Amino acid sequence: MNEPFSGIDVTTLLQIDSSARFGRSGHDRHGSHTRRMTDHFVRHWLARAPQTEVLVRDVAATPPRPVDDRWIEAAFTPADHRTAEMAAILRESDQLVDELERADLIVVGAPMYNFGVPSPLKAWIDNVVRVGRTFGFDRGRPGAPYWPLLAPGKKLIVLSARGDGGYGAGGPLEAANLVDASIRVPLAYVGVTDFRSIAAEWDEFADARVRESLKSAEADIEGLVTQLAPSRPRVDPQLILAQAIHADP
Amino acid sequence: MNEPFSGIDVTTLLQIDSSARFGRSGHDRHGSHTRRMTDHFVRHWLARAPQTEVLVRDVAATPPRPVDDRWIEAAFTPADHRTAEMAAILRESDQLVDELERADLIVVGAPMYNFGVPSPLKAWIDNVVRVGRTFGFDRGRPGAPYWPLLAPGKKLIVLSARGDGGYGAGGPLEAANLVDASIRVPLAYVGVTDFRSIAAEWDEFADARVRESLKSAEADIEGLVTQLAPSRPRVDPQLILAQAIHADP
Repeated sequence: MNEPFSGIDVTTLLQIDSSARFGRSGHDRHGSHTRRMTDHFVRHWLARAPQTEVLVRDVAATPPRPVDDRWIEAAFTPADHRTAEMAAILRESDQLVDELERADLIVVGAPMYNFGVPSPLKAWIDNVVRVGRTFGFDRGRPGAPYWPLLAPGKKLIVLSARGDGGYGAGGPLEAANLVDASIRVPLAYVGVTDFRSIAAEWDEFADARVRESLKSAEADIEGLVTQLAPSRPRVDPQLILAQAIHADP
Repeated sequence: MNEPFSGIDVTTLLQIDSSARFGRSGHDRHGSHTRRMTDHFVRHWLARAPQTEVLVRDVAATPPRPVDDRWIEAAFTPADHRTAEMAAILRESDQLVDELERADLIVVGAPMYNFGVPSPLKAWIDNVVRVGRTFGFDRGRPGAPYWPLLAPGKKLIVLSARGDGGYGAGGPLEAANLVDASIRVPLAYVGVTDFRSIAAEWDEFADARVRESLKSAEADIEGLVTQLAPSRPRVDPQLILAQAIHADP
């Protein structure tokens, strides 16, 4: 969130981890490459923008409940017509959407599992793509029956890791990489269209390739932080006010 | 399973449902289109091949547990080195893999949720793509470190439904349809390469388009059954023996 008139531009970074492995590779035994990468991003970001508010959502440690028929019924019931039970069913989704609304920057650690995202990350997506909160739907609205409801300007960064190699742009397995699209497409639908992606490959071969790939990914992460993070506190009060209004309408 | 020498070619059909809606559209209030479609397929199949063994796996009613770090450790431990706890962790995966191994025909009802599959269906995929059971992995094997372990000849049929339209081959939203690839790619990796797909569209618009689309999908399902199902019991004992050996190596 932006704090108006504080003299410091405070952004909110939502860090989402989804690897079934806990800890960080290179630091913890059987640690996760994607957790190492999200940690690397956040550490470098905080070095440049120490006032950033960081929200951490670990969907592997606490998998969101898959949407079910009662969730759908509750979500499609207007908020002021919901029963207490319906409100309870949506509470977890409400919290996940609240975090997404607050975030200026969404950093997702998403390992490739069987070519796609881990199932708890898909459960997170299904909980935050929410009618009336993150997208609008009106079947009678000509031409554009769906529209995004999240405030513009959010950035989405996917940090991925893959067991073998060749899934990047132009690679021989690019078409089999469903990770980026599985996150990019639904998040764009709710209004997060600024997408970046960095990946490490060759995890399962445990040789020089994975070490080189991680080194390259970490350099790319540092480059992206340099590009996106404010290099110093911005103090233009006009700008801060405009952002505060934007974040807290 | 094929029963040798019985004189009847018995195939096994694995029906997987994943819609968060229960019941069938056109039959039950708020019923599911994909459950209607899998039911339509199975009814028509049984009319032509009444000896078929049908296994039903409902991943919405009983969502498979997402794979976690203990699952990964257990799966990568050779079976004869697993502790009792490891064996217990893999029990659900074992059962899901057993069903897939038995199946000659896999019919998946897969509604599009936020452009991809419901999260419990991804959890099913992550439980059946299993090292040492459905694929082999040897990082030292030159050229082909991964290889499929399921018996060849299985057929995969995805029956999908979408809220709006245009996601089919050549449609304006084809690139945003992640449902087919999310199932086709990992199942091909374990050896199920014969893939067919039929979808109904326009669910959320509740007008003539969804009725037409369902009608067309049901006709396509009937055509596919006619194409794939044996028109009468096959009694060539050589063939039955060959299939029995194939199914029970």
